[in-house]
Amino acid sequence: MTDHKGNQKAMLPTLAPMLSVRNGAKAVDFYIAAFAAAVLFRVDQGGTIAHLSIDGAQFWVADESPAHHNFSPDSLGGSTVRLILTVDDPDAVFQRAIAAGATQVWPVEDQHYGWRVGRLADPFGHHWEIGKPLR
Amino acid sequence: MTDHKGNQKAMLPTLAPMLSVRNGAKAVDFYIAAFAAAVLFRVDQGGTIAHLSIDGAQFWVADESPAHHNFSPDSLGGSTVRLILTVDDPDAVFQRAIAAGATQVWPVEDQHYGWRVGRLADPFGHHWEIGKPLR
Repeated sequence: MTDHKGNQKAMLPTLAPMLSVRNGAKAVDFYIAAFAAAVLFRVDQGGTIAHLSIDGAQFWVADESPAHHNFSPDSLGGSTVRLILTVDDPDAVFQRAIAAGATQVWPVEDQHYGWRVGRLADPFGHHWEIGKPLR
Repeated sequence: MTDHKGNQKAMLPTLAPMLSVRNGAKAVDFYIAAFAAAVLFRVDQGGTIAHLSIDGAQFWVADESPAHHNFSPDSLGGSTVRLILTVDDPDAVFQRAIAAGATQVWPVEDQHYGWRVGRLADPFGHHWEIGKPLR
Protein backbone atom coordinates (compact mmCIF):
# COMPACT_ATOMS: atom_id res chain seq x y z
CA MET A 1 0.00 0.00 0.00
CA THR A 2 1.19 3.52 -0.71
CA ASP A 3 -0.10 6.82 0.65
CA HIS A 4 -0.92 9.92 -1.43
CA LYS A 5 2.77 10.79 -1.69
CA GLY A 6 3.64 7.32 -2.99
CA ASN A 7 5.32 6.27 0.25
CA GLN A 8 5.00 2.70 1.47
CA LYS A 9 2.33 2.53 4.18
CA ALA A 10 2.38 -0.11 6.91
CA MET A 11 -0.42 -2.69 6.69
CA LEU A 12 -2.30 -3.27 9.91
CA PRO A 13 -1.91 -6.87 11.12
CA THR A 14 -4.76 -9.34 10.61
CA LEU A 15 -5.31 -12.65 12.34
CA ALA A 16 -7.40 -15.41 10.80
CA PRO A 17 -7.82 -18.93 12.18
CA MET A 18 -7.26 -21.88 9.82
CA LEU A 19 -9.46 -24.80 10.86
CA SER A 20 -8.11 -28.29 10.25
CA VAL A 21 -10.88 -30.71 9.33
CA ARG A 22 -11.58 -34.14 7.91
CA ASN A 23 -13.28 -33.68 4.53
CA GLY A 24 -12.52 -30.06 3.78
CA ALA A 25 -14.82 -30.00 0.75
CA LYS A 26 -17.84 -30.90 2.88
CA ALA A 27 -16.73 -28.51 5.61
CA VAL A 28 -16.61 -25.56 3.22
CA ASP A 29 -20.14 -26.42 2.08
CA PHE A 30 -21.25 -26.52 5.70
CA TYR A 31 -19.74 -23.11 6.55
CA ILE A 32 -21.40 -21.59 3.48
CA ALA A 33 -24.78 -23.00 4.57
CA ALA A 34 -24.38 -22.32 8.29
CA PHE A 35 -22.87 -18.83 8.23
CA ALA A 36 -23.63 -17.59 4.71
CA ALA A 37 -19.86 -17.50 4.25
CA ALA A 38 -18.47 -16.14 0.99
CA VAL A 39 -15.61 -18.01 -0.66
CA LEU A 40 -12.65 -15.69 -1.27
CA PHE A 41 -10.36 -18.45 -2.50
CA ARG A 42 -10.68 -22.20 -2.86
CA VAL A 43 -8.52 -25.03 -4.19
CA ASP A 44 -9.68 -28.66 -4.23
CA GLN A 45 -6.57 -30.24 -5.68
CA GLY A 46 -4.87 -32.83 -3.47
CA GLY A 47 -7.05 -31.72 -0.57
CA THR A 48 -9.21 -28.69 -0.02
CA ILE A 49 -8.02 -25.32 1.23
CA ALA A 50 -10.40 -22.38 1.28
CA HIS A 51 -10.45 -18.80 2.50
CA LEU A 52 -13.91 -17.78 3.72
CA SER A 53 -15.53 -14.55 4.87
CA ILE A 54 -18.58 -14.04 7.05
CA ASP A 55 -19.34 -10.46 6.00
CA GLY A 56 -15.67 -9.59 6.43
CA ALA A 57 -14.84 -11.89 9.35
CA GLN A 58 -12.28 -14.12 7.71
CA PHE A 59 -11.14 -17.68 8.33
CA TRP A 60 -9.59 -20.61 6.49
CA VAL A 61 -10.54 -24.26 6.22
CA ALA A 62 -8.08 -27.00 5.24
CA ASP A 63 -7.92 -30.76 5.19
CA GLU A 64 -5.91 -32.05 8.09
CA SER A 65 -2.37 -33.25 7.56
CA PRO A 66 -0.93 -34.78 10.72
CA ALA A 67 2.51 -35.06 9.04
CA HIS A 68 2.46 -31.24 8.94
CA HIS A 69 1.13 -30.83 12.52
CA ASN A 70 -2.38 -30.00 11.30
CA PHE A 71 -4.86 -32.12 13.24
CA SER A 72 -8.64 -32.20 12.97
CA PRO A 73 -10.75 -32.30 16.15
CA ASP A 74 -11.87 -35.77 14.99
CA SER A 75 -8.26 -36.99 15.14
CA LEU A 76 -7.45 -35.45 18.53
CA GLY A 77 -10.82 -35.91 20.24
CA GLY A 78 -11.34 -32.21 20.91
CA SER A 79 -10.36 -28.74 19.78
CA THR A 80 -7.70 -26.40 21.07
CA VAL A 81 -9.18 -23.11 19.88
CA ARG A 82 -12.70 -21.74 20.25
CA LEU A 83 -14.01 -19.38 17.59
CA ILE A 84 -15.57 -16.24 19.00
CA LEU A 85 -17.98 -14.92 16.38
CA THR A 86 -19.54 -11.57 17.22
CA VAL A 87 -22.65 -10.71 15.22
CA ASP A 88 -25.56 -8.32 15.39
CA ASP A 89 -28.18 -11.07 15.82
CA PRO A 90 -26.62 -14.08 17.57
CA ASP A 91 -29.97 -15.86 17.94
CA ALA A 92 -30.58 -15.88 14.19
CA VAL A 93 -27.01 -16.87 13.28
CA PHE A 94 -27.04 -19.63 15.90
CA GLN A 95 -30.36 -21.06 14.69
CA ARG A 96 -29.23 -21.02 11.07
CA ALA A 97 -26.08 -22.96 11.99
CA ILE A 98 -28.11 -25.51 13.97
CA ALA A 99 -30.45 -25.92 11.00
CA ALA A 100 -27.39 -26.55 8.80
CA GLY A 101 -26.21 -29.38 11.07
CA ALA A 102 -24.38 -27.91 14.05
CA THR A 103 -25.00 -29.19 17.60
CA GLN A 104 -25.91 -26.92 20.49
CA VAL A 105 -23.47 -27.03 23.42
CA TRP A 106 -25.37 -24.35 25.31
CA PRO A 107 -28.09 -22.04 24.02
CA VAL A 108 -27.88 -18.32 23.30
CA GLU A 109 -28.54 -16.57 26.61
CA ASP A 110 -27.65 -13.38 28.42
CA GLN A 111 -24.51 -14.08 30.47
CA HIS A 112 -23.52 -12.44 33.76
CA TYR A 113 -20.37 -11.10 32.11
CA GLY A 114 -22.34 -8.83 29.81
CA TRP A 115 -22.67 -10.84 26.61
CA ARG A 116 -25.57 -12.56 24.94
CA VAL A 117 -23.92 -15.70 23.62
CA GLY A 118 -24.39 -19.41 22.87
CA ARG A 119 -21.99 -22.18 21.96
CA LEU A 120 -22.23 -24.84 19.29
CA ALA A 121 -20.09 -27.61 17.87
CA ASP A 122 -19.96 -27.81 14.10
CA PRO A 123 -20.08 -31.21 12.35
CA PHE A 124 -16.26 -31.14 12.05
CA GLY A 125 -15.65 -30.74 15.76
CA HIS A 126 -14.87 -27.02 15.92
CA HIS A 127 -16.61 -25.02 18.63
CA TRP A 128 -18.11 -21.59 18.01
CA GLU A 129 -19.29 -19.05 20.55
CA ILE A 130 -21.77 -16.80 18.78
CA GLY A 131 -22.76 -13.66 20.57
CA LYS A 132 -22.60 -9.94 21.06
CA PRO A 133 -21.87 -7.59 23.95
CA LEU A 134 -24.96 -6.38 25.81
CA ARG A 135 -25.15 -2.62 26.16
CA MET B 1 -24.49 1.65 17.06
CA THR B 2 -26.77 4.28 15.52
CA ASP B 3 -26.40 6.20 12.28
CA HIS B 4 -26.80 9.98 11.90
CA LYS B 5 -30.59 9.61 11.94
CA GLY B 6 -30.52 7.66 15.19
CA ASN B 7 -31.38 4.35 13.52
CA GLN B 8 -29.81 1.14 14.75
CA LYS B 9 -26.89 0.18 12.49
CA ALA B 10 -25.84 -3.40 11.95
CA MET B 11 -22.43 -4.29 13.40
CA LEU B 12 -20.11 -6.08 11.02
CA PRO B 13 -19.24 -9.56 12.26
CA THR B 14 -15.85 -10.19 13.85
CA LEU B 15 -14.11 -13.50 14.42
CA ALA B 16 -11.44 -13.94 17.09
CA PRO B 17 -9.81 -17.22 18.08
CA MET B 18 -9.68 -18.15 21.78
CA LEU B 19 -6.58 -20.23 22.49
CA SER B 20 -6.84 -22.85 25.23
CA VAL B 21 -3.58 -23.22 27.11
CA ARG B 22 -2.01 -24.66 30.23
CA ASN B 23 -0.92 -21.76 32.44
CA GLY B 24 -2.85 -18.89 30.92
CA ALA B 25 -1.02 -16.30 33.02
CA LYS B 26 2.34 -17.31 31.57
CA ALA B 27 0.84 -17.55 28.09
CA VAL B 28 -0.43 -13.97 28.22
CA ASP B 29 3.04 -12.81 29.25
CA PHE B 30 4.50 -14.74 26.32
CA TYR B 31 2.13 -13.21 23.76
CA ILE B 32 2.89 -9.73 25.09
CA ALA B 33 6.63 -10.38 24.73
CA ALA B 34 6.44 -12.25 21.41
CA PHE B 35 3.93 -10.10 19.51
CA ALA B 36 3.89 -6.83 21.45
CA ALA B 37 0.26 -7.67 22.18
CA ALA B 38 -1.82 -5.13 24.08
CA VAL B 39 -4.13 -6.39 26.83
CA LEU B 40 -7.71 -5.24 26.21
CA PHE B 41 -9.15 -7.23 29.11
CA ARG B 42 -7.71 -9.67 31.63
CA VAL B 43 -9.03 -11.61 34.60
CA ASP B 44 -6.82 -13.89 36.72
CA GLN B 45 -9.43 -15.15 39.16
CA GLY B 46 -9.99 -18.90 39.14
CA GLY B 47 -7.97 -19.17 35.95
CA THR B 48 -6.80 -16.60 33.44
CA ILE B 49 -8.82 -15.27 30.55
CA ALA B 50 -7.48 -12.39 28.47
CA HIS B 51 -8.41 -10.48 25.34
CA LEU B 52 -5.33 -9.39 23.41
CA SER B 53 -4.68 -7.22 20.37
CA ILE B 54 -1.71 -7.20 18.01
CA ASP B 55 -2.22 -3.70 16.59
CA GLY B 56 -5.91 -4.46 16.13
CA ALA B 57 -5.67 -8.18 15.29
CA GLN B 58 -7.56 -9.63 18.23
CA PHE B 59 -7.48 -12.97 20.01
CA TRP B 60 -8.24 -14.48 23.40
CA VAL B 61 -6.23 -16.70 25.71
CA ALA B 62 -7.81 -18.88 28.40
CA ASP B 63 -6.80 -21.67 30.74
CA GLU B 64 -7.99 -24.99 29.44
CA SER B 65 -11.02 -26.66 30.98
CA PRO B 66 -11.56 -30.13 29.56
CA ALA B 67 -14.90 -30.38 31.41
CA HIS B 68 -16.05 -27.51 29.18
CA HIS B 69 -14.54 -28.94 25.97
CA ASN B 70 -11.62 -26.52 26.05
CA PHE B 71 -8.41 -28.46 25.54
CA SER B 72 -4.84 -27.20 25.38
CA PRO B 73 -2.48 -28.53 22.71
CA ASP B 74 -0.49 -30.04 25.59
CA SER B 75 -3.49 -32.14 26.60
CA LEU B 76 -4.36 -33.31 23.08
CA GLY B 77 -0.86 -33.64 21.64
CA GLY B 78 -1.42 -31.18 18.83
CA SER B 79 -3.55 -28.23 17.74
CA THR B 80 -6.66 -28.12 15.58
CA VAL B 81 -6.40 -24.52 14.38
CA ARG B 82 -3.45 -22.66 12.87
CA LEU B 83 -3.24 -18.92 13.41
CA ILE B 84 -2.57 -16.98 10.22
CA LEU B 85 -0.99 -13.68 11.23
CA THR B 86 -0.48 -11.24 8.38
CA VAL B 87 1.96 -8.44 9.11
CA ASP B 88 3.99 -5.89 7.23
CA ASP B 89 7.37 -7.35 8.27
CA PRO B 90 7.01 -11.09 8.88
CA ASP B 91 10.76 -11.60 9.28
CA ALA B 92 10.94 -9.15 12.18
CA VAL B 93 7.78 -10.44 13.89
CA PHE B 94 8.95 -14.04 13.50
CA GLN B 95 12.39 -13.31 14.96
CA ARG B 96 10.91 -11.45 17.92
CA ALA B 97 8.65 -14.42 18.70
CA ILE B 98 11.58 -16.85 18.45
CA ALA B 99 13.59 -14.64 20.80
CA ALA B 100 10.67 -14.74 23.25
CA GLY B 101 10.67 -18.55 23.29
CA ALA B 102 8.80 -19.83 20.23
CA THR B 103 10.18 -22.71 18.15
CA GLN B 104 10.66 -22.51 14.40
CA VAL B 105 8.70 -25.13 12.40
CA TRP B 106 9.86 -23.70 9.10
CA PRO B 107 11.57 -20.39 8.43
CA VAL B 108 10.15 -17.29 6.76
CA GLU B 109 10.59 -17.79 3.02
CA ASP B 110 8.94 -16.84 -0.25
CA GLN B 111 6.41 -19.56 -1.11
CA HIS B 112 5.31 -20.65 -4.57
CA TYR B 113 1.74 -19.63 -3.75
CA GLY B 114 2.67 -15.97 -3.51
CA TRP B 115 3.24 -15.42 0.18
CA ARG B 116 6.35 -14.77 2.23
CA VAL B 117 5.64 -16.79 5.36
CA GLY B 118 7.12 -18.91 8.13
CA ARG B 119 5.64 -21.14 10.78
CA LEU B 120 6.39 -21.40 14.48
CA ALA B 121 5.08 -23.24 17.51
CA ASP B 122 4.61 -21.14 20.62
CA PRO B 123 5.58 -22.56 24.05
CA PHE B 124 1.92 -23.50 24.65
CA GLY B 125 1.62 -25.65 21.52
CA HIS B 126 -0.24 -23.25 19.25
CA HIS B 127 1.09 -22.87 15.71
CA TRP B 128 1.35 -19.52 13.96
CA GLU B 129 1.97 -18.81 10.30
CA ILE B 130 3.42 -15.34 10.07
CA GLY B 131 3.57 -13.80 6.65
CA LYS B 132 2.32 -11.42 4.03
CA PRO B 133 1.22 -11.68 0.42
CA LEU B 134 3.95 -10.93 -2.12
CA ARG B 135 2.99 -8.32 -4.69
